[in-house]
Amino acid sequence: MPLPTTKPYLVRAIHEWCCDNGFTPYIAVKVGPRTHVPIEFVKDGQIVLNISAAATNRLVIGNDLIEFQARFGGVARELSVPLASVLAIYARENGGGMAFEADDEAEESVGTDTVVLPDASDPEPEPPPTRPRLQRVK
Amino acid sequence: MPLPTTKPYLVRAIHEWCCDNGFTPYIAVKVGPRTHVPIEFVKDGQIVLNISAAATNRLVIGNDLIEFQARFGGVARELSVPLASVLAIYARENGGGMAFEADDEAEESVGTDTVVLPDASDPEPEPPPTRPRLQRVK
Repeated sequence: MPLPTTKPYLVRAIHEWCCDNGFTPYIAVKVGPRTHVPIEFVKDGQIVLNISAAATNRLVIGNDLIEFQARFGGVARELSVPLASVLAIYARENGGGMAFEADDEAEESVGTDTVVLPDASDPEPEPPPTRPRLQRVK
Repeated sequence: MPLPTTKPYLVRAIHEWCCDNGFTPYIAVKVGPRTHVPIEFVKDGQIVLNISAAATNRLVIGNDLIEFQARFGGVARELSVPLASVLAIYARENGGGMAFEADDEAEESVGTDTVVLPDASDPEPEPPPTRPRLQRVK
């Protein structure tokens, strides 16, 4: 029997680490049928979202879903992302964080530190200062 | 400039994952000058401690120290373990969790999933059912 996933716990941990240290938490998401995000910002089947307190409203990182409200072009949208579709969570400022492998079919993910992040489009006006470089956890 | 460590956040995350799923969280610790643990249970410079709610009192997993009270041979002892000395946190029942590398000199640690856990002694009466087998995070 597979173990229950630690992924939601790790995503919450890195989110808290970002917030405590003044970093901006970004998630890279593989877009699938259960992913509710602004389709116009999806690129190559993926999207990068800012989930900082400043950029979101009513953010909940649950065990199955990340849900929040965010504004795109001045319009508030309701977003919902399955944890299984999260490819990475990292600090925009330095790329520190964790990467995962998404598995849409199984709706489960296996952690890895070898995932290469895609050139995902960014709903924020300005792009991240550097391409995310995910590091081994410290 | 090195990034602030994510280790305390990850240790808290795995601890919470264990508690939510009914697993018993164990930590493997490299004993050093700042480690206050019952010396009689230290083996090869390391100790394994049960940090479940049932086995501890006043447990605090801070950013620098893990502190708690636990009973050994019926006597309550005050324990204190620097986060930098934590080699791993895992579920006793299945070995799921995370391993780290301890660095006593720098009082910092670098995460890794290749650490092999030692044959550490266990202050609990019965040994874990299996040798911890640390897995990739899910």
